[in-house]
Amino acid sequence: MEPNLEGVKALAFDVFGTVVDYRTTIVAEGQRLGEAGGIEIDWAAFADAWRGRYRPSMDRVMRGELPWTNLDALHRAALEELLAEFGVSGLSEEEKQRLNGVWHRLRPWGDSVPGLLRLKTRFVLATLSNGNVRLLVDMAKNAGLPWDLIFSAELARAYKPDPRAYRMLQELLMLNPNEIMMVAAHQDDLRAAQDLGFKAAFVMRPLEHGPQAVPDLTADPSFDVVATDLVDLARQLGL
Amino acid sequence: MEPNLEGVKALAFDVFGTVVDYRTTIVAEGQRLGEAGGIEIDWAAFADAWRGRYRPSMDRVMRGELPWTNLDALHRAALEELLAEFGVSGLSEEEKQRLNGVWHRLRPWGDSVPGLLRLKTRFVLATLSNGNVRLLVDMAKNAGLPWDLIFSAELARAYKPDPRAYRMLQELLMLNPNEIMMVAAHQDDLRAAQDLGFKAAFVMRPLEHGPQAVPDLTADPSFDVVATDLVDLARQLGL
Repeated sequence: MEPNLEGVKALAFDVFGTVVDYRTTIVAEGQRLGEAGGIEIDWAAFADAWRGRYRPSMDRVMRGELPWTNLDALHRAALEELLAEFGVSGLSEEEKQRLNGVWHRLRPWGDSVPGLLRLKTRFVLATLSNGNVRLLVDMAKNAGLPWDLIFSAELARAYKPDPRAYRMLQELLMLNPNEIMMVAAHQDDLRAAQDLGFKAAFVMRPLEHGPQAVPDLTADPSFDVVATDLVDLARQLGL
Repeated sequence: MEPNLEGVKALAFDVFGTVVDYRTTIVAEGQRLGEAGGIEIDWAAFADAWRGRYRPSMDRVMRGELPWTNLDALHRAALEELLAEFGVSGLSEEEKQRLNGVWHRLRPWGDSVPGLLRLKTRFVLATLSNGNVRLLVDMAKNAGLPWDLIFSAELARAYKPDPRAYRMLQELLMLNPNEIMMVAAHQDDLRAAQDLGFKAAFVMRPLEHGPQAVPDLTADPSFDVVATDLVDLARQLGL
């Protein structure tokens, strides 16, 4: 049966991995920093380890072991640990701040900007990201991401997949849940949105974790759309 | 002495009156509705009366006489009263919703879009408006306002000039107060921002209240910039 998507008015986007390619950007910036400073480490392993701290850090906040901490601060705490673990010493405070800021400069996948521009002609495009507001603002400005609304878990003080993040966006948009479609490369994010009545579009990003990784690309039959990228999503939505 | 504006990184904009011309838009839509439905009232007086309920409505919320109520709902409550007052009856629920939605379709002053596009090349452009998020999203999409961030008093649950609204935007942007410049056509808005350490740009909008009105265009000597419009503001900021 064809899913009925006629009532969808807004698309809510996961950002890290779905819209931007954090791994390639971090490797590229790390290698430049390494060449300039004589640091020889495996930047791909570093990027994977940094991203690997993401979920555990947010879980600590959501369990109440940490007070509310935005993603920039969680990234920075993880960075300090990883620099020690990878044996990198001697970075100045300014260099560390610059490196932590790489998350503000992540590059979009090649299809992201053209796909979003097409989708924007019919839908309200909102971020629904665990990235903090400033991070998302800088990223959008740097990468030319044409959001209509930057919404962040920071505003709900609840990281996805906590339902409060999705619910708050829905309330601000003054839409019914089934008028919003979550767009993400991650099944758990989509399922959390579906639990609240959102529609779900799964975007396959086979390279999110690098060319050697084997990510879970299983499309749950309950997903309303399965797209190979954001241009394909636009096409499937008739744009 | 020339004000030092070198450290300014973000501009926070008042919207109603400063960026968009609510009076002309409401009069135009009202007249169209009136012609279609045989309603003969003074739409300019209606627009002025509607805007006149704005501050008292928000004050009731801020005094705790009403629970948090977003601006769409405050506009709607005022609309019901004004329709009765102006002797307009027989509008359907759909027509009332459509009329209340005029605030989502307000037209920008002629200089607003070109001015914002120039300012966007150097600064983060954020709204700092009492309009609710959905209203501001619709307005931006409809009028082509190129905001980097839509921020609303709704997120702070405190209407300007309550300091919580300004402070929350400052915290989300992770900037010092003096790195943000408030841009507004209203002195009280600018003074509230200045009290927190923001810079202030006064934009003169002599026609905000119509051609017969005599608005207060007194530029406080403490304002950092006084501009005739947003293109002039861009020029004064070197763009």
